[in-house]
Amino acid sequence: MSIYNAPTKDIQFLLHDLMNISASDIPGYAELDRDFTSAILEEAGKVASEVLAPLNAVGDQEGCSFENGVVRTPTGFKEAFDQIREAGWTGLDCDPEYGGQGLPYLMGSSVGEMFVSANMAFNMYQGLTHGAYSAIHAHGSDDQKAMFLPKMVSCDWTGTMNLTEPHCGTDLGLMRTKAVPQDDGSFKISGQKIFISAGEHDLADNIIHLLLAKIPGGPDGIKGVSLFIVPKFNVDEDGNLGARNGAFAGKIEEKMGIHGNSTCVMNYDEATGYLLGEEHKGMRAMFTMMNEARLGVALQGFAQAEVAYQNAVVYANDRLQGRDVTGTKNPEGPADPLIVHPDIRRNLMDQKSFVEGARAFAYWAANLIDRSNRMDDKEAHGLVSLVTPVLKGFLTDKGFENTIAAQQIYGGHGYIEESGMSQFARDARIAMIYEGANGVQALDLVGRKLGQDGGKHVMAFFALVKDFIKENEKDEILQNGFLEPLKNASKDLQTASMYFLENAAKKPNNALAGSYDFMHAFGHVCLGLMWAQMAQAAGKALANGNGDKSFYETKITTGRYYMARQLPAVAMHLARIQSGADTVMALDAANF
Amino acid sequence: MSIYNAPTKDIQFLLHDLMNISASDIPGYAELDRDFTSAILEEAGKVASEVLAPLNAVGDQEGCSFENGVVRTPTGFKEAFDQIREAGWTGLDCDPEYGGQGLPYLMGSSVGEMFVSANMAFNMYQGLTHGAYSAIHAHGSDDQKAMFLPKMVSCDWTGTMNLTEPHCGTDLGLMRTKAVPQDDGSFKISGQKIFISAGEHDLADNIIHLLLAKIPGGPDGIKGVSLFIVPKFNVDEDGNLGARNGAFAGKIEEKMGIHGNSTCVMNYDEATGYLLGEEHKGMRAMFTMMNEARLGVALQGFAQAEVAYQNAVVYANDRLQGRDVTGTKNPEGPADPLIVHPDIRRNLMDQKSFVEGARAFAYWAANLIDRSNRMDDKEAHGLVSLVTPVLKGFLTDKGFENTIAAQQIYGGHGYIEESGMSQFARDARIAMIYEGANGVQALDLVGRKLGQDGGKHVMAFFALVKDFIKENEKDEILQNGFLEPLKNASKDLQTASMYFLENAAKKPNNALAGSYDFMHAFGHVCLGLMWAQMAQAAGKALANGNGDKSFYETKITTGRYYMARQLPAVAMHLARIQSGADTVMALDAANF
Repeated sequence: MSIYNAPTKDIQFLLHDLMNISASDIPGYAELDRDFTSAILEEAGKVASEVLAPLNAVGDQEGCSFENGVVRTPTGFKEAFDQIREAGWTGLDCDPEYGGQGLPYLMGSSVGEMFVSANMAFNMYQGLTHGAYSAIHAHGSDDQKAMFLPKMVSCDWTGTMNLTEPHCGTDLGLMRTKAVPQDDGSFKISGQKIFISAGEHDLADNIIHLLLAKIPGGPDGIKGVSLFIVPKFNVDEDGNLGARNGAFAGKIEEKMGIHGNSTCVMNYDEATGYLLGEEHKGMRAMFTMMNEARLGVALQGFAQAEVAYQNAVVYANDRLQGRDVTGTKNPEGPADPLIVHPDIRRNLMDQKSFVEGARAFAYWAANLIDRSNRMDDKEAHGLVSLVTPVLKGFLTDKGFENTIAAQQIYGGHGYIEESGMSQFARDARIAMIYEGANGVQALDLVGRKLGQDGGKHVMAFFALVKDFIKENEKDEILQNGFLEPLKNASKDLQTASMYFLENAAKKPNNALAGSYDFMHAFGHVCLGLMWAQMAQAAGKALANGNGDKSFYETKITTGRYYMARQLPAVAMHLARIQSGADTVMALDAANF
Repeated sequence: MSIYNAPTKDIQFLLHDLMNISASDIPGYAELDRDFTSAILEEAGKVASEVLAPLNAVGDQEGCSFENGVVRTPTGFKEAFDQIREAGWTGLDCDPEYGGQGLPYLMGSSVGEMFVSANMAFNMYQGLTHGAYSAIHAHGSDDQKAMFLPKMVSCDWTGTMNLTEPHCGTDLGLMRTKAVPQDDGSFKISGQKIFISAGEHDLADNIIHLLLAKIPGGPDGIKGVSLFIVPKFNVDEDGNLGARNGAFAGKIEEKMGIHGNSTCVMNYDEATGYLLGEEHKGMRAMFTMMNEARLGVALQGFAQAEVAYQNAVVYANDRLQGRDVTGTKNPEGPADPLIVHPDIRRNLMDQKSFVEGARAFAYWAANLIDRSNRMDDKEAHGLVSLVTPVLKGFLTDKGFENTIAAQQIYGGHGYIEESGMSQFARDARIAMIYEGANGVQALDLVGRKLGQDGGKHVMAFFALVKDFIKENEKDEILQNGFLEPLKNASKDLQTASMYFLENAAKKPNNALAGSYDFMHAFGHVCLGLMWAQMAQAAGKALANGNGDKSFYETKITTGRYYMARQLPAVAMHLARIQSGADTVMALDAANF
């Protein structure tokens, strides 16, 4: 059986030592003092460890079942879902006007991370509802908000996102699902959607499908796509459930992982739907939620790596195998624990330095989202838009890579399902694919975000790095292993950015062929910046004699590892980028 | 449904254009002319595509079943196994004295690659038998050979390797299984072995377990381990099956992949066993087969990447999504095929350049094994021993990475089991773990192989690279994108080797902390050398106007991609290595 312990200490470090959130000017942050956030995190951590984590393997082994259109979730999911709902966790960062608790998105993210680590498949039922809630909140009419939001905040009703069709995923302009206007202002929706997470299940009284479809006669392609609300059960003006709508699951998919979440083929047969936002502006409505949704997936990436890492550490300390070459550490035992071996350390340090750096990066982004949403700060919005594809692409790629690394610590035992390590990897795998496959994230970064607003946001990012280095050039801790690698990596990333800007117009393939490497190089620089900032914050705490000395020292050491061992990847990515598109595009398709 | 087409053309290129095997002085190679090897490869390819590949998904979905000690393999496995046996494939490279066909190991490897690509779990039944055959062939008495080998060559009886126990894998010195000598010269074996692939099944009349155990009173630790033959059914002097031996499967494991192969817990309860080789010299006997067994696993790594790549190419050509930014390629269609997009190309080129480079590397090693075995060539033996951990560690790591990359091409469809892409990845995962986890390979490389015979073999390897560069410095094809990257990468690898040799004695942790990076850097240099050699051979064929022009040109372009896009990783690995052990070993175990 695998374990999960909520990393509340590390989260508290980020919220207070690093970000000093209770001193922030963002509305709603003032109340977030150490005690308050500690109370929330401790309680959420308990739920994660005691309620959700024990159901993780159950969900994987049982999966969901499908019979006559009815989907049953794994044993215990319904009870746990009710427990989460009733304790108010589902509305933590939702609008108080609709029953939410109004906490910042940052707090929602930190609790979300824990729930995802404990049980990713389970948490998706709530996560998707949150996404649908956000869409209706941003684009719905007052009536729509009043009708749907309170029940979705409480997860009495859950939500879904219906985008993909069998023949189109990324290229949604090819969509065939139709929405035919009716006299009463509603629409009749017909078509098939696939890969609909939580499309049908037994956890809630109603399911509110958000769905993209085309209104006949509208513009061709992506410009003719509109967003609709399609409830499983029709709802009357008093909020009572009425007749079953024509929205049915046709089957559930057998997947590599996240077995506890039902992935449905959804068939819409003249289902009643309601326009959400403006006609033909469905993609724009979707995009307003994109930063949040993609950050949510980024979180899944490192949250799986976190729980896999925790288990790998336990195993590395327990399993006795071989002897320390520099001298026995466990002379009474038949062998030393795995953790004495340098290559096991190397592996664990890779994981630890990734997970903690990733957490800082994700929380920084969540903080920017709060600043953007709560203060309408355009610069914060631009910056978080820029790094969103990096968060999603880099953290899920590396998150998966690190779950595999954690599984490796177990040797053969990690390949056996009983250990739980395979599930972490199989579950983490999907995060690289959905909410825009990582190649699409790289394209978004290089093709859209880099040049957005005249390249203003990427310049702001580089200025941030430069200013940090300048402000801290006398910091002795940072002088030792932080500033120099960060400076070099940032310089390489700037060189790569220039390469793209120069090639974008005349040789777009040169830019696109390097997009994936650029996303990874950018990710490393972001984590490098986070580590330098964390080391600075830890150094300050040490100087002030605050708290747990060993925690802060460990933080600095772990950062030094990341700078020494991971940042050299940036130069490699730059070399790959600068090799251009020639070797990438040279072959005829027939020669593959 | 996934497809598999045997890469016979590429294999023929390696055997003849690159290695010119029929002109080799290795005994048995003279008969391997183009027509002869073509006939074998075409026929094996047909078996792989038509008999084995269709059972791959069946094996994954059904898995093996266990009831009352009886293991049933998936539907169709028995019939296919009989077909393979009866056609003589199982004895292809076995000793004619025992019914084998006596072909070189190189040919066994090329056919093996195909069978593994088509159905890895299935092929393990035969592969493990081959391993056990080799052990008995090398260390058995004449009576043992006469009794067991003919039936194992034909796979009427299959074989297993029993090493791991619940508390010990890598550190076999901790072993508890006991072998008590009997008056008649046999032993009574008692203990439990785990992770025994093909430990029990319904494909063969008898199962010959090779097992490591300790004879009471022998030396402590690894020096007191002996190797035994323990048949499932006792065999009388005439080869008739007698009483059931006390060797029973206790259960089969639920695994991440290779479901079609039964992974058993084996319980030995006073089972009759026969000493194989000398008392207490069991590990030495095991090690004589290690190069072959590890090359077999290396082959699994890239063979899964090969079949995954083939399917990714089909999908990338079929799936219409988005438009080529440089101009529409499919104006009549609703969108262009995925393969027009630079990042899809980048991904496919990563896969293609890895798989073809890996194949060349593995076949080169197989060729060295033939030279070593058939000519008792010590230098060939030393060289293949040196690169064996690189083959096993690098090719299985990268093989898995590339199956994941292939799965990514499919987007959401790749996560659905129906596509078959998940199985390739789940199956490939085990190759990083068994036959010595890849961290142990890295340790073997740095701790044993690098300094072996005074560093003679690594110097021979560097001389090989240097000589190749010197001999071809005027080659125009190689001047363009091959020689310079190879020179630089080889130089970085030499610098790393020096770092290890300097640190090994006084600071062993510095060497060990960089072992994994060294293994990968070494792998890249090997593939770089292979690509330079292949480009040279392709250029020669083009100059001579031989065969398929487009094939040879594609080969050179693919090589250029590898040099430009993969070799920059070597400098990164060097930087990581040179950062030493300080950040790796700094934390107390309690601070992880």
